[in-house]
Amino acid sequence: MEKNNLRIGVIGCGTVGTHVIKSLSRNRHVLRKKTGIDISIIKVCDKDRRKKKAFPSVFTSKIDEVIEAPLDVIVELIGGIDSSYHIITKSLKSGRSVVTANKALIAEKGREIFRLAERKNLHVGFEASVAGAVPVIKTIRESYIGNNISRIMAILNGTTNYVLTRMFFDSMNLSQALRMAQKLGYAEANTELDIKGLDTAHKLSILSALAFNKFVSWKEISVEGIENIEPMDISFTAEFGYRIKLLAVAQKKGASLDLRVHPTLLPSRHLLSLVEGVYNAVYIEGDMAGKSLLYGEGAGGAAAASAVIADIVDTGMKLAGHNGSRTDAALYEDEKVVLIPMKDICTRYYFRFTALDKPGVLATISGILGHKGISIASVIQKEESPEKAVPILMLTHVAREESVRKAICQIDGLSFIKKPTVILRVEE
Amino acid sequence: MEKNNLRIGVIGCGTVGTHVIKSLSRNRHVLRKKTGIDISIIKVCDKDRRKKKAFPSVFTSKIDEVIEAPLDVIVELIGGIDSSYHIITKSLKSGRSVVTANKALIAEKGREIFRLAERKNLHVGFEASVAGAVPVIKTIRESYIGNNISRIMAILNGTTNYVLTRMFFDSMNLSQALRMAQKLGYAEANTELDIKGLDTAHKLSILSALAFNKFVSWKEISVEGIENIEPMDISFTAEFGYRIKLLAVAQKKGASLDLRVHPTLLPSRHLLSLVEGVYNAVYIEGDMAGKSLLYGEGAGGAAAASAVIADIVDTGMKLAGHNGSRTDAALYEDEKVVLIPMKDICTRYYFRFTALDKPGVLATISGILGHKGISIASVIQKEESPEKAVPILMLTHVAREESVRKAICQIDGLSFIKKPTVILRVEE
Repeated sequence: MEKNNLRIGVIGCGTVGTHVIKSLSRNRHVLRKKTGIDISIIKVCDKDRRKKKAFPSVFTSKIDEVIEAPLDVIVELIGGIDSSYHIITKSLKSGRSVVTANKALIAEKGREIFRLAERKNLHVGFEASVAGAVPVIKTIRESYIGNNISRIMAILNGTTNYVLTRMFFDSMNLSQALRMAQKLGYAEANTELDIKGLDTAHKLSILSALAFNKFVSWKEISVEGIENIEPMDISFTAEFGYRIKLLAVAQKKGASLDLRVHPTLLPSRHLLSLVEGVYNAVYIEGDMAGKSLLYGEGAGGAAAASAVIADIVDTGMKLAGHNGSRTDAALYEDEKVVLIPMKDICTRYYFRFTALDKPGVLATISGILGHKGISIASVIQKEESPEKAVPILMLTHVAREESVRKAICQIDGLSFIKKPTVILRVEE
Repeated sequence: MEKNNLRIGVIGCGTVGTHVIKSLSRNRHVLRKKTGIDISIIKVCDKDRRKKKAFPSVFTSKIDEVIEAPLDVIVELIGGIDSSYHIITKSLKSGRSVVTANKALIAEKGREIFRLAERKNLHVGFEASVAGAVPVIKTIRESYIGNNISRIMAILNGTTNYVLTRMFFDSMNLSQALRMAQKLGYAEANTELDIKGLDTAHKLSILSALAFNKFVSWKEISVEGIENIEPMDISFTAEFGYRIKLLAVAQKKGASLDLRVHPTLLPSRHLLSLVEGVYNAVYIEGDMAGKSLLYGEGAGGAAAASAVIADIVDTGMKLAGHNGSRTDAALYEDEKVVLIPMKDICTRYYFRFTALDKPGVLATISGILGHKGISIASVIQKEESPEKAVPILMLTHVAREESVRKAICQIDGLSFIKKPTVILRVEE
């Protein structure tokens, strides 16, 4: 790497690869400003030659042309095991660092790859291999480095979680929900790795290695999928107060590890129970950090690309040997910031009026609100207590803070209003 | 920094400082194995001389003795503004990197501190200043570096969230809930910064600077606290389907920023609505990562110390200019791992039997389970359909997988059982 210029090659132009290339090109200036590193895409490779149209100047369909180009980082996004293993080891042997989103490969060949990278003093980034954009690998390795992690429970497969969500909310059976997932692009044609829990086991093998510093092959992990779950299991366990989720469970018990993947009943108020659709989440217990949860988009080209770009930048920072903290300088520059003034906020509002309980009060209040363009969504007057002050609770539709302030000021001046009105805002 | 030996000094031995020192000492070997860096605590400083007893060989009560010692990193944990600003600037000027948990200082003097650090090519770590152990600063700066962040909504003050939680669940009023928080050590004697939302505004100023690369002083942020919230607001908004949370809201609208702190109505199924007690959570929307949430312990000595240690290690890695990825080597070593065999798992179970609907069936099943030491928590037989196969759903108390397997094997051999029994496990 010369003069903070990070030269990268991207192998595989599917949805993830395309997002990575477009975003790096679009944000090149911002990234340079934040990190001091200029990332240039030197080679883009795909076996489909028609992709050349999108990247004419850098495209090749020959993998070796990428590996042999003068690059700092090779980004492997073709998936599978054999050719990606070949690409990564050959890249490392020729002195290139590697970024990959390939969970199957890391779970299968991680040890060989990391040993090779260590010998060559190179970097392998694989944040995108588990839970998409969710920074679970960085959190375990870096943020929780002072922790002894005792337990991880995680929803790591978007397809199965989508299926279980549809079964729960729409009383579908598994094959109906799966067809819907396929129709919406949330599931591949071949869903066996997902439904049988094997994809989750790949990811659990990676997380467990990071959390406990012990490598367990996914083949040794006890795995059950969701293929036997029927709608009645979903509805009956709901009556017992549970949700069914396909969980990866990893627990440290003394010197032993308890690793398993299976459909699991979780209390309905557990945070993991509330992870719906294609979202992923990882719940971690550490001796210092306590209980925590990371939640986000586990699949999709943009989410995975978010993690790939973070890995590319991290690699660039390491290769550049930067000492300073990135972004700090850009952060605190003197540029004038335009703050939206409070009066221009538009949102829904909650009001608590304290008014004498007598005829005409609500008509007067709603008249003033209407006059300022504030429309009422619902109103409750709980107590009846003639001629005494009672609370009136109101939710509005979207209104402008300035109008609200003016209306409430006018209302609070009325003789039957006995206390300043409480105003709260709503966010969805 | 010489030969990967990171020499640190800790100023301030309150709960956070004590946790940092103890954990670094206890885990010194593990941290060295994972990172290659040996962290040694050279100086510990507190104004209370009685603390010397705990750290006799390294203790001093004189701050200057720490700043003038041959150190790589100075950890400032005394809080407040004036003396901590003095400590940090003096440390940076003498060439030491700094780690701090001081949100008020970073929100107030961040620009000066970061500019000074940049000029000296030093590092300032401040992960612990926002949301305790939750890695929100690292996630925004590093993991989401490829994202344009459009929106942040966050619960950043444990005291107010505890108070609102108690008001919701126990129908307390604000002062009762606050007294309980103080009694349990979740609130200081002076709660004004918390209740009035100013502590949240400090943290929002930091997050907003990181997310949007624009610095806005907390003094310019529109802030309302929870002081006017009454139990009836909590209960009536609950009827409308909302929870009230003290939120920090940051939104980018074109070139303008919308920053505010106020009690907010959130739909009860929104993930932030489910953040209870002293927990913190940050909800982030980015153009690539999509919607995500980071959740965890926002306060407490151990949680903050977890973040401080992560910053110390990060600083050490940067000063050492390491190229290789940390932990990878340790991760994939050949050490034999003892996996707990599935038969030894102990948990609660859910069974779905498919049995002929005839007298004596349940007695036989429960007899076999009882014989294997499996005790039944609840059972439902939904349908009645004499002489036909119907589902029987059952939840057990904690049982051992091996006993369960044996019992179900025996049960599935009975003539009135018409399908293999479905077995699911429960996690709490």
